Amino acid sequence: MRTLIKGGTVLSPTGGVLADVLVQDEQVAAVTAPGVFDTADTVLDATGKYVLPGGIDAHTHMEMPFGGTFSADTFETGTTAAAWGGTTTIIDFAVQAKGTSLVSTLDKWHEKADGNCAVDYGFHMIVSDVNDATLKEMETCIDSGVTSFKMFMAYPGVFYSTDGEILRAMQKARETGSTIMMHAENGIAIDELVAQALASGKGEPVQHGLTRPSALEGEATSRAITLAQVTGAPLYIVHLSAAEALSAVAEARDSGQHVFAETCPQYLYLSIDDLAKPGFEGAKYVASPPLREKRHQADLWRGLRTNDLSVVSTDHCPFCFKDQKELGRGDFSKIPNGMPGVEHRMDLLHQGVVAGEISLGRWVEACSTTPARMFGLYPRKGVIAPGSDADIVIYDPAARQTLSAETHHMNVDYSAYEGFEITGKVETVLSRGKVVVSPSGFSGGTGHGRFLSREKCQYLN
Amino acid sequence: MRTLIKGGTVLSPTGGVLADVLVQDEQVAAVTAPGVFDTADTVLDATGKYVLPGGIDAHTHMEMPFGGTFSADTFETGTTAAAWGGTTTIIDFAVQAKGTSLVSTLDKWHEKADGNCAVDYGFHMIVSDVNDATLKEMETCIDSGVTSFKMFMAYPGVFYSTDGEILRAMQKARETGSTIMMHAENGIAIDELVAQALASGKGEPVQHGLTRPSALEGEATSRAITLAQVTGAPLYIVHLSAAEALSAVAEARDSGQHVFAETCPQYLYLSIDDLAKPGFEGAKYVASPPLREKRHQADLWRGLRTNDLSVVSTDHCPFCFKDQKELGRGDFSKIPNGMPGVEHRMDLLHQGVVAGEISLGRWVEACSTTPARMFGLYPRKGVIAPGSDADIVIYDPAARQTLSAETHHMNVDYSAYEGFEITGKVETVLSRGKVVVSPSGFSGGTGHGRFLSREKCQYLN
Amino acid sequence: MRTLIKGGTVLSPTGGVLADVLVQDEQVAAVTAPGVFDTADTVLDATGKYVLPGGIDAHTHMEMPFGGTFSADTFETGTTAAAWGGTTTIIDFAVQAKGTSLVSTLDKWHEKADGNCAVDYGFHMIVSDVNDATLKEMETCIDSGVTSFKMFMAYPGVFYSTDGEILRAMQKARETGSTIMMHAENGIAIDELVAQALASGKGEPVQHGLTRPSALEGEATSRAITLAQVTGAPLYIVHLSAAEALSAVAEARDSGQHVFAETCPQYLYLSIDDLAKPGFEGAKYVASPPLREKRHQADLWRGLRTNDLSVVSTDHCPFCFKDQKELGRGDFSKIPNGMPGVEHRMDLLHQGVVAGEISLGRWVEACSTTPARMFGLYPRKGVIAPGSDADIVIYDPAARQTLSAETHHMNVDYSAYEGFEITGKVETVLSRGKVVVSPSGFSGGTGHGRFLSREKCQYLN
Amino acid sequence: MRTLIKGGTVLSPTGGVLADVLVQDEQVAAVTAPGVFDTADTVLDATGKYVLPGGIDAHTHMEMPFGGTFSADTFETGTTAAAWGGTTTIIDFAVQAKGTSLVSTLDKWHEKADGNCAVDYGFHMIVSDVNDATLKEMETCIDSGVTSFKMFMAYPGVFYSTDGEILRAMQKARETGSTIMMHAENGIAIDELVAQALASGKGEPVQHGLTRPSALEGEATSRAITLAQVTGAPLYIVHLSAAEALSAVAEARDSGQHVFAETCPQYLYLSIDDLAKPGFEGAKYVASPPLREKRHQADLWRGLRTNDLSVVSTDHCPFCFKDQKELGRGDFSKIPNGMPGVEHRMDLLHQGVVAGEISLGRWVEACSTTPARMFGLYPRKGVIAPGSDADIVIYDPAARQTLSAETHHMNVDYSAYEGFEITGKVETVLSRGKVVVSPSGFSGGTGHGRFLSREKCQYLN
Repeated sequence: MRTLIKGGTVLSPTGGVLADVLVQDEQVAAVTAPGVFDTADTVLDATGKYVLPGGIDAHTHMEMPFGGTFSADTFETGTTAAAWGGTTTIIDFAVQAKGTSLVSTLDKWHEKADGNCAVDYGFHMIVSDVNDATLKEMETCIDSGVTSFKMFMAYPGVFYSTDGEILRAMQKARETGSTIMMHAENGIAIDELVAQALASGKGEPVQHGLTRPSALEGEATSRAITLAQVTGAPLYIVHLSAAEALSAVAEARDSGQHVFAETCPQYLYLSIDDLAKPGFEGAKYVASPPLREKRHQADLWRGLRTNDLSVVSTDHCPFCFKDQKELGRGDFSKIPNGMPGVEHRMDLLHQGVVAGEISLGRWVEACSTTPARMFGLYPRKGVIAPGSDADIVIYDPAARQTLSAETHHMNVDYSAYEGFEITGKVETVLSRGKVVVSPSGFSGGTGHGRFLSREKCQYLN
Repeated sequence: MRTLIKGGTVLSPTGGVLADVLVQDEQVAAVTAPGVFDTADTVLDATGKYVLPGGIDAHTHMEMPFGGTFSADTFETGTTAAAWGGTTTIIDFAVQAKGTSLVSTLDKWHEKADGNCAVDYGFHMIVSDVNDATLKEMETCIDSGVTSFKMFMAYPGVFYSTDGEILRAMQKARETGSTIMMHAENGIAIDELVAQALASGKGEPVQHGLTRPSALEGEATSRAITLAQVTGAPLYIVHLSAAEALSAVAEARDSGQHVFAETCPQYLYLSIDDLAKPGFEGAKYVASPPLREKRHQADLWRGLRTNDLSVVSTDHCPFCFKDQKELGRGDFSKIPNGMPGVEHRMDLLHQGVVAGEISLGRWVEACSTTPARMFGLYPRKGVIAPGSDADIVIYDPAARQTLSAETHHMNVDYSAYEGFEITGKVETVLSRGKVVVSPSGFSGGTGHGRFLSREKCQYLN
Repeated sequence: MRTLIKGGTVLSPTGGVLADVLVQDEQVAAVTAPGVFDTADTVLDATGKYVLPGGIDAHTHMEMPFGGTFSADTFETGTTAAAWGGTTTIIDFAVQAKGTSLVSTLDKWHEKADGNCAVDYGFHMIVSDVNDATLKEMETCIDSGVTSFKMFMAYPGVFYSTDGEILRAMQKARETGSTIMMHAENGIAIDELVAQALASGKGEPVQHGLTRPSALEGEATSRAITLAQVTGAPLYIVHLSAAEALSAVAEARDSGQHVFAETCPQYLYLSIDDLAKPGFEGAKYVASPPLREKRHQADLWRGLRTNDLSVVSTDHCPFCFKDQKELGRGDFSKIPNGMPGVEHRMDLLHQGVVAGEISLGRWVEACSTTPARMFGLYPRKGVIAPGSDADIVIYDPAARQTLSAETHHMNVDYSAYEGFEITGKVETVLSRGKVVVSPSGFSGGTGHGRFLSREKCQYLN
Repeated sequence: MRTLIKGGTVLSPTGGVLADVLVQDEQVAAVTAPGVFDTADTVLDATGKYVLPGGIDAHTHMEMPFGGTFSADTFETGTTAAAWGGTTTIIDFAVQAKGTSLVSTLDKWHEKADGNCAVDYGFHMIVSDVNDATLKEMETCIDSGVTSFKMFMAYPGVFYSTDGEILRAMQKARETGSTIMMHAENGIAIDELVAQALASGKGEPVQHGLTRPSALEGEATSRAITLAQVTGAPLYIVHLSAAEALSAVAEARDSGQHVFAETCPQYLYLSIDDLAKPGFEGAKYVASPPLREKRHQADLWRGLRTNDLSVVSTDHCPFCFKDQKELGRGDFSKIPNGMPGVEHRMDLLHQGVVAGEISLGRWVEACSTTPARMFGLYPRKGVIAPGSDADIVIYDPAARQTLSAETHHMNVDYSAYEGFEITGKVETVLSRGKVVVSPSGFSGGTGHGRFLSREKCQYLN
């Protein structure tokens, strides 16, 4: 079974070339000068379009348990929405509950995802309970293709790890060559500020932002970097939102330390002004770290250009406004933390290309190639090259669309980007050679996506 | 006419994939999964070898006039040596003499090179005489495919430009989107130190290093960066050798300024200890900036990893020890400045891979892909992709060789790396589809290389 | 009752002037040109000597409870030794035990000191138990002349405060204008390293240093600075020992933040090599932060010159080798933390003058004037000016002495500086006008010293 | 002849004490507790007033030749105005013309000043012509009490020195322990920008600011610091006006290099908005470096607090609006560079105290004590101490005044601070024991001021 994508501009981190792509079954068989092959079982005309490796969203939370409820997208709805948006791989988080084992956690997440995903998926492991057994299990996880472990300096009493626990996990990461991912906010100090706000009767959503100052993200980021330096572990800062944190990352990277960071579209486009919208509207924008003052946005775009921010993920973690976000009316600390976004990442970052913030190559690199290399999926994913999985997006750079909850495919009753006008649109999406999205609609299926056993970070030598 | 390179690992900045490469006439026609094509007019077996885009040496000086003599390699001998070493493109410097025009200079250099090159070549223009006419001529140069202009903060009375002249040229660069390349050493202060050393009877080669302290390279680099910031011009620092200069570049890059830098193998492997060799032996190592204390080497390798050093060029500018270097016996300031190196860059940097200093992808990126993008040659050069020129090196990573003047192909009577043992060796080299080096020897010809009209720097958006 | 000190060079932070000092009862009555006054009840000839304000040691621990034992100097022996060494004021620490109140703690420390001190003394308060009541009591302490509150990021389970507790105390400090003093080491991470060392059978004294890497002092210092920035509190880093911490302080100070730091003589003169002395000898040098690699010393001296280190204190906390230090044989974590030093600070820092590391003015400033201003004692203490307490040292810069446990006056059975040869020596010491040390010996008494009710830090406007 | 100043608060860099000051002839005889002396030939009541060491203005240009004209204040009028404003010492600049000797220059300036000054004065030497003879003469200058040498990186063709000349002078400064003062602006680049502005018809005063961007002051400051580092010379940056320059100074100081800087009141209070005033009004504000964007002011105040800016001088160099400033109508480059200010420095900086920007001690330190120590006048000047010259100001902190050309005493027809309302006022001024200004008016005389032979910088050990 052969598919030929003809006439497009094939993109990679270094730019674009006019080329045809021949797909044989599930893989790329050849990238050729135009016309080397004439025909195939299916021929897709990409003239005037970009042909790019499918997006990789390295940070999603499907049906994640959080404070008695679950994030609103299942693996089925979430991966389907991802496909619609040109993302053909997600890496979701298995969440260890305190007192449980990593292996049983992983089993549980496999159960959730198995047979339910529209695109391929992998897992990171959230380590909430550091002890001898857990540390030993990290080896099993790695052998099972889960090579990255997320820890939290925030959320005391829930996911929070102490610096001593982080140190131990980092030592294990160093020993095994795996990566520690860090939610870097000083949760201990923040909880104090939250308690003070609530005690003084300040319960509205904007307080979520005001009680989590950017300096405390900068602090935690610096601390994580120091612990990584002391132990020799590779470190990946998730959802970096603050200029102070970016400075810390840039300094560490200049020194040659293995420190990496991702940001998310919401930090590039939204701000604390959204959190401060009248009434309870701001609840839609509650996520952690919080949306920042607008001034941080220019720094984050610069960080994307300088590669101090290497990856753009979404931290997709949707909660419906009704019934879910509403749990926090009058007490912002009870608003489920998270925003929807898996469907819009490729489009939103393309706006950065349109606006001249980043180059075409950088778009593809930050959204696909680098996450693949960072999380051990390259060259299977993240590139259009012979032997790679044929995860391919045909993107029309001239199309126009307007984002809205009415038209999106995520299972959530609002859009954080309601009314945003976008230049560019996903036209066709192949997942492992199969057309799953086309101008005719969604043609994939939830049994299609397969679990990806990942190698270790490919930036370490 | 088709050539098929089979069984190798095709390298790019993001890593390697097992793939075959089909060459049609002068270009790459396809990169395919192994076995997609079975046969061709010529089939080259690359099993167990690397298949990489030909090296691009963005900084060479063939038959360059210098103090009454000329650098010892002609375009013929120099480009032939380049080919032997896996470098399939050089960008040489046309040198404006004071009082002459840029256009006539370019004509002169075309005459020197035309029909004499074994591999493709482009030109940068050295601007020695900044005036209204010269600035206007920069536009003509750009139209003629010479899109980068080198200036000197060193060599007063010869190539030196004042900060005012640099400012004017940078304004023109900003206006035209071209790049200013800078030899960043504070030549005015250095000349004073040189005069003082000579006045106190210190004439031996090591004084060349002692009178050019690294702080004065750091200073000039900072100054060039400030002038670039004031004018908005893109800036490329040539042959960066000093930790202080690297810091200045890193800081500017963190801030998002369009500042780039190259280093050279001699700064990674040699040191002022070589300049201090007994007798007049140190003369072999006289180049500017001078070889530094060994401590700078670790910083430079780190800079290559962090991409604060984006390119490795050679500054190839050979002078024979006999008759040429000897002009400076007793007066180091009369030793012609320059060292041979065009043949050994790919091999020497591969040692960085062997030693774990850089990754395979980074080797290819710094030596080929980035110079192509930096100087407007991508995707024609710097990548193995459909439509690209078939400049391809088959490299045997396991072969062993010893560098020596007795075996090298450069027209110079000594080797700066005499006796260096190297792991890895160029096996076969294609230049625009033609095998010019193979295990049987050199099969190219001096009429083969063509002038490359270059686009502007491709990192500016 | 009048005392006239004639013929000396009166020192202040800005340098020295030839002047006579007239003391009336307990205070300085006049500083005059030589000979303005001829006679007095007592005339002290200071010709050829320095006349300087008595030293202020802002960091001592007399008879401090620590792990079932007490530091070996009582207020009587400790302040007597201080007087011998030219220190006429100490600020000791009242230590809140968990579950007790600040006020009762202060009462207890008053009981210990009252009537037992040879020189004047004040208190800082160690806050171990942050809660609403404690925070409220900070106000009472301030009203009682205790305007600075020390907290620990080290010693979990003992003195350790969480970042949330630190935040609360800093908010109170900001509100009241008082100062937070910080022991900045990441004790949580360190405890993990200590446990690992012990678990692997490494129990010798040098492990104390190896398990407390300087990076973790740098980290904690940065964190404390960020918390101070978020709250607006003045911050004083105690016993800074590491280059990384100094960098963090310097950066904060450059930005204008109210951050101050002290170092101690042991970090200027001793190193981890002392901790690594054969057998159990290293136990004599166990204090926290630990003695560092020698390379830190040059940075600390530079910090003293640049005023990034504003104060030199001793952290005097002596434990006898016999019976006390020996508690930790085989388990370094059980060695009582602390070293003797209150007697030698002025002499040791004078060696910095002799060696050209600091100026005479800086000696006086770091050892007397600045601690007075930092802790609200100026101009009562820290200066020889009309109205100031006549705490005056006549110092012979040409005398020679050798430090030794056999001759020192501290109640401890070893000297950390055994055999150090010192240029300069205290000749005469006046405390509030009374000669307490003279060439004839100690003439003071333990009832002489009075409690000093302190103002707030005088650097805050 | 004795004068007693009773009841005031005597100020020094470390704060204030209630004390009486006894003056005997020209010097301070005693500083005493209130009432130690009852009577004297003259008794001045300073109750409720500050008693501070007379101001030292280390940067003035009286009757300075500039482009065919002279600055408008003679030594007589200028030093009289200084006295009115509480400044009792000026250090003016002798200006070497190209082709003349330093010694003859110094003689000439002695002639100008001798017998014409109302207060004491010293000289710095402007070195315009660096050669063997000049460098040798630096030694003679030092022997004659001129221990600091100013050079210019601005004003090519007039005062400008090349980096090679600066290097040579710095080597001499290192050898002799003298100080290099630097006007740090990249004059070569600036002249190009000026020429371009004029060529495009932009001749109005604001262009003076626009053609001298702050980045070019930052650059020159960094360059001077590097040259000082290479040679080991002490460096004093004059009239620092730009945040970029301050950063460079702060970084050098953190590293322990002997780098110092002054700023001036005009950079703290005025801005490029003044240069942009309608018509030719902006000419009144033309000085170099130019007035900056307002954002720099907060940085400069912070620099004063952190001591990265050690001194406040005026760069007093008045030119009348009529006939002098008017020389540049239509061509801003012909406007004489300079502003009046010697009379207002103490008052303007006292506003910083009132506004909470600096402390009282810092006011005295930056305006009097530090310049004395910086330029080798301490403790003769800069302090109220036994043996010091009785240069004393009684300052009424509660008085109010309005600055205006109608009331000021400088010989210039406009005030740069016209209409500024000031809290605080000089009440009485003693110069070497003589009351020269009092509520009754000026009682000094132009023969009173004496030349001050200065020691070297007192911050170097």
